[in-house]
Amino acid sequence: MFYGDDSPIAAVATPPGQGALAVIRTSGKNAIELLAERFSAPRKLTTAAGNTIVYGWILGKDRSRLDETLVSVYRAPKSYTGEDGADISCHGGYAVAKAALETLHDAGFRDALPGEFTFRAFMNGKLDLTRAESVMEIVSAKTDKAHAGAVRRLSGDLETEIRAIKEKLVRVLAGAELFLDYSEDEFAEADADERSGMLPQRELAREALAELRELAASFHIENLYQEGALAVIAGRPNAGKSSLFNRLLKEDRAIVSESPGATRDWLEAWIAVEGIPVRLADTAGIRDSSDAIEKNSVERSIELIKCADVILYIVDGTVGLVDEDKRLLHSEEIAGKPLIMVWNKDDVARDMTDPPAGVERVSAKTGKGVPNLPARIAEALAGRKADAEGGRIGVASARQKALIDKAVEQVVDALDMADKGRALDIIAPSLREAVDCLGEITGEVSTADILEVMFSSFCVGK
Amino acid sequence: MFYGDDSPIAAVATPPGQGALAVIRTSGKNAIELLAERFSAPRKLTTAAGNTIVYGWILGKDRSRLDETLVSVYRAPKSYTGEDGADISCHGGYAVAKAALETLHDAGFRDALPGEFTFRAFMNGKLDLTRAESVMEIVSAKTDKAHAGAVRRLSGDLETEIRAIKEKLVRVLAGAELFLDYSEDEFAEADADERSGMLPQRELAREALAELRELAASFHIENLYQEGALAVIAGRPNAGKSSLFNRLLKEDRAIVSESPGATRDWLEAWIAVEGIPVRLADTAGIRDSSDAIEKNSVERSIELIKCADVILYIVDGTVGLVDEDKRLLHSEEIAGKPLIMVWNKDDVARDMTDPPAGVERVSAKTGKGVPNLPARIAEALAGRKADAEGGRIGVASARQKALIDKAVEQVVDALDMADKGRALDIIAPSLREAVDCLGEITGEVSTADILEVMFSSFCVGK
Repeated sequence: MFYGDDSPIAAVATPPGQGALAVIRTSGKNAIELLAERFSAPRKLTTAAGNTIVYGWILGKDRSRLDETLVSVYRAPKSYTGEDGADISCHGGYAVAKAALETLHDAGFRDALPGEFTFRAFMNGKLDLTRAESVMEIVSAKTDKAHAGAVRRLSGDLETEIRAIKEKLVRVLAGAELFLDYSEDEFAEADADERSGMLPQRELAREALAELRELAASFHIENLYQEGALAVIAGRPNAGKSSLFNRLLKEDRAIVSESPGATRDWLEAWIAVEGIPVRLADTAGIRDSSDAIEKNSVERSIELIKCADVILYIVDGTVGLVDEDKRLLHSEEIAGKPLIMVWNKDDVARDMTDPPAGVERVSAKTGKGVPNLPARIAEALAGRKADAEGGRIGVASARQKALIDKAVEQVVDALDMADKGRALDIIAPSLREAVDCLGEITGEVSTADILEVMFSSFCVGK
Repeated sequence: MFYGDDSPIAAVATPPGQGALAVIRTSGKNAIELLAERFSAPRKLTTAAGNTIVYGWILGKDRSRLDETLVSVYRAPKSYTGEDGADISCHGGYAVAKAALETLHDAGFRDALPGEFTFRAFMNGKLDLTRAESVMEIVSAKTDKAHAGAVRRLSGDLETEIRAIKEKLVRVLAGAELFLDYSEDEFAEADADERSGMLPQRELAREALAELRELAASFHIENLYQEGALAVIAGRPNAGKSSLFNRLLKEDRAIVSESPGATRDWLEAWIAVEGIPVRLADTAGIRDSSDAIEKNSVERSIELIKCADVILYIVDGTVGLVDEDKRLLHSEEIAGKPLIMVWNKDDVARDMTDPPAGVERVSAKTGKGVPNLPARIAEALAGRKADAEGGRIGVASARQKALIDKAVEQVVDALDMADKGRALDIIAPSLREAVDCLGEITGEVSTADILEVMFSSFCVGK
């Protein structure tokens, strides 16, 4: 790890694959001068004003032409990182980016570490940590809703909120420390109410606590929008699992294709369910089997069900609940999980069976009833209806949530001690700790370790 | 198809997927003004000079902030397309690009057709067709060698070459037409040599023909670099196919992962073999089988072998060629294909069998001998050693090759007729046709149909 120096760095900032354009981002000391050494119009580059674009060819070590490019020149401090830098817009594809990166290495650039551009932006005061984290949230957002929350955090709404709460706690702490500064004599002269309460502006602390708790509570929803959830379609063979899977895909257009990876033995696709990215998985038929191959597929289904955030349990409506369904529904893997029971084949089964209350009657074949399922899935996942747009800002980062929880704990302790009439010098450290936690969220208080862990989860080129 | 108007168009020009940046390219009439309607700093955008960068937020229909962006402003005619336009550099990821494109649609942009930006660049005289095609060749280049050839074409080397050959043919044609312009009387007065030969500057025509033939011959190699080839590893079970596959991958690092697509039943990976992108495929064991599943896998192997450009046939060196090998090698699928016979397990088999001449002795296990294979593969594919860097420019486009072939045919016809002493008014049309073919290569002579077919094979955003 080299985070923290200002050496010239370069990275491809666009996704791999064939596309019209690829952008190579550079930043750091002498970045523009070094690039000029491998550029067909070096003087135009070194004399270019900030925020201007220079046309030219990027050159190999042997001065051969590698690609026709447009170079966006940025001058410190008016750049993303706050340093001098240049974005090289080349033709897309595998070979161009590789050749261009090689020539840059050779000219003295090193590969940027994950998140290093944003790290430098943070170090140079261009954005606080909540905004830095929102950058990655935006990149990985899978639905409009997830994106909207992240954009609000990028705009600084969360930073403002955290700073406001911190300001309240600082005022409480300042009040307490004012008392601590009193001489013993003066303290003795303080009125009875002050002495017994010990903590001035306790109401302000309570207000801050309530706000912190609200932020902490927002994490469940915001994280759900950001990370998504797994919905598994389960049920006996021929209950109509695959039909329902396909029908749901048709109703709620798949939102992102999975990146290529390990081969899976089940079908899955991302769908957007009221703004929540839901990974919908269709299990193989779960059934008792003595056949080795079959068993393997059952085991995989059970693994999938164990991971599920919500289960769509399909019952063949022409048959109704049979013993096998009941056994499955009471199995330790399924029991206790959020579950939506779907009574399928309603087009033909209407009078054949009598579904229990709360069951969704659908026909995967005709589509009837299927449009009701997304609301049920969203309800099962979000617990309650998600906040309307324009509501309070929320927290989507696990790091931030952990710090807020820690701050809540400290404020609760402080208030508790105050209620018990403990001395201010006992109470103050808890408040200071809470203030530090909030400072750590925005990055005012931070250590190199914390920053490295945080930024190294970013993608390269960011 | 709407190719040919100048309406404002927009497209994501970077590959899909998670990345730090995504670039949305726009171009056309009022593109900057329309974008300004959805931009946080509209005046800065509309008053920006060409080749400058403007910072601001892109806004939704309801003026909500969608993303923090840097917009590169281009003013006609100094832009890729020759029109006014702007490249919007947003955060990467699925949701941002989707939201930004939606707001642009709503503001009056339409989706760009495949290749439409480059089409406009061509129509506005920014590049000829050989350079336009090289743009796509660059994007899809899989090895440095493929890239280098495409870059030379982008630089205009091929355009220059084609124009030079065309110039020669035009001079021959002009000479012929000068004669045609003579009155009958004057013609009768021409000297005997001129009358019998009929075609002046016949040597120049022969020179042009030779150059055209050289260009046509370059297609095989250039196309190989560009499109790559399929090498299939075949052989009896346990001959060591998979070991060799893995060993070759290790020696020649896989160059690009396949885009996700249909599930395959064999392993394959792209490797770079002396600059040629080679899709290396490992077949399942080919053997007679009455088992249904097994048969299916054999059929697939045979399909793969039928498509192969070269076969690596592995023989177990501890056993040598057995009847089954001989039967396979003489089967209609394999016989006649370029084939490299690989005598495997050389680490233990050295004295056990006596391989025929021309066989490569290797040990997939230890790696011994494997480094010799790439040269053999390249030789089998390219026929002869490919041109050294800096040699003559080549043709990689099937469209260009077809036109060159047509031009060759016409020049041959013309020379043939001239040799037979045919009249100039019979010969001239063939020469004119050849000149037109060359004009069509660069795009001087073109029809809307031809252009649409060509550009529609480009990727969107290019």
